[in-house]
Amino acid sequence: MRVLICVAYDGTDFCGWQLQPNVRTVEGELNKALSSLFGQTIEVIGASRTDAGVHALSNMAVFDVETTIPADKICMAVKRNLSADVEIVWSKEVAKDFHPRHRLTEKTYEYTIWNGKFWPPTERRYSFFESRDLDIEAMKEAAAFLVGEHDFKAFSCAATQVETTVRNVCDITVDREGDKVLIDVTGNGFLYNMVRIISGTLLWVGLGVRTPGDVKEMLNACDRSLTGPTLPAAGLMLKSFKFLE
Amino acid sequence: MRVLICVAYDGTDFCGWQLQPNVRTVEGELNKALSSLFGQTIEVIGASRTDAGVHALSNMAVFDVETTIPADKICMAVKRNLSADVEIVWSKEVAKDFHPRHRLTEKTYEYTIWNGKFWPPTERRYSFFESRDLDIEAMKEAAAFLVGEHDFKAFSCAATQVETTVRNVCDITVDREGDKVLIDVTGNGFLYNMVRIISGTLLWVGLGVRTPGDVKEMLNACDRSLTGPTLPAAGLMLKSFKFLE
Repeated sequence: MRVLICVAYDGTDFCGWQLQPNVRTVEGELNKALSSLFGQTIEVIGASRTDAGVHALSNMAVFDVETTIPADKICMAVKRNLSADVEIVWSKEVAKDFHPRHRLTEKTYEYTIWNGKFWPPTERRYSFFESRDLDIEAMKEAAAFLVGEHDFKAFSCAATQVETTVRNVCDITVDREGDKVLIDVTGNGFLYNMVRIISGTLLWVGLGVRTPGDVKEMLNACDRSLTGPTLPAAGLMLKSFKFLE
Repeated sequence: MRVLICVAYDGTDFCGWQLQPNVRTVEGELNKALSSLFGQTIEVIGASRTDAGVHALSNMAVFDVETTIPADKICMAVKRNLSADVEIVWSKEVAKDFHPRHRLTEKTYEYTIWNGKFWPPTERRYSFFESRDLDIEAMKEAAAFLVGEHDFKAFSCAATQVETTVRNVCDITVDREGDKVLIDVTGNGFLYNMVRIISGTLLWVGLGVRTPGDVKEMLNACDRSLTGPTLPAAGLMLKSFKFLE
């Protein structure tokens, strides 16, 4: 049977999702734990290949297995084979031809900026630090220009080879919760580093280095040299993941 | 001069505050970093010797040094000698006879219970997990019995040798923030494991295993075998620290 799993992890001590020799990756850990549970070689197919240091509350993957363990019990059964920084939140059987990357999805990434006088050591694995005051209203205004279907070439890693840099961003919210400024970006697909570059650009707006109107122009210019910095991976979390249809 | 420092740390990778041979402690890290900065042996005197795994936003310590660096610049100057999980938040000169443990203080410890359906890997360093519903109102009611001057013998590690087990708890609050249940205990002094045992006892009340009235009786009985479990160190944080007078 084919099993769909929802996977959560603290990305700090992983070299990203994708399997690589001689380093610890989420895909590698899952393959090892599931292969050990079932006594057969299991190879998961992930939905989102998050970068080194990026966290997830909800990433998705599938794998094929012959087993008598009911699909929905696999998440519990595999728990003791996984370390504390990765967990299979739930598991369920899906159709044999279900492929997590060939489906319409809606994902929300959250970027966390710690915007206080000092950066507590207990927040450093999960945020980027900026001590200067941020203008949240200006950030919201700038974010609104990015919502919708646009060419996000200026908001992607220059070296990326993709067919098209047009993407549809369904929603961006910017909110303050105490010392945290949370940027939530929801869309059907993202370019490489897109959320981290959007966050770096909104940070510039929050600092007054750029205006909301500048962000609209950046989008039209399609030039990576005009947009903000790629903020570090630690602040980024794949927060929710839905298969549409 | 004598310098007072405010210290924040992620306790996960420390074997507690107190200096011990061959293991990493907060006191040891501070001594090493400050000695290296000043080129002379520095030995800090800490205010609170937190246990292994316990975090701090604000612990205090003093040390003596002969230097031309202004006291308030020391926190910045030493930054590059410290790893990311410990920081000197501020530093200032105090009187030569200022001793952080011979003064009247008010400390707030916060215990975090993650009370949701699942425990995100990104929350595990800083919380204790309980998936069953907690009755917050009952926990508040029980907490109210503990406020004031009482003999907290039932809420301390049985083996502790202290002159008196009477302590004054100024305030206890229990609040839910999303999936987090936060227990804040403020007082002038605490017995060994006292906040972790109070939290374990309030957890019992939240689960309906004990009633608020039972907690009042526990206090009167002065018997450790009647109170709840010592919850794990990871959920505990020394949140604020004031010198009164």
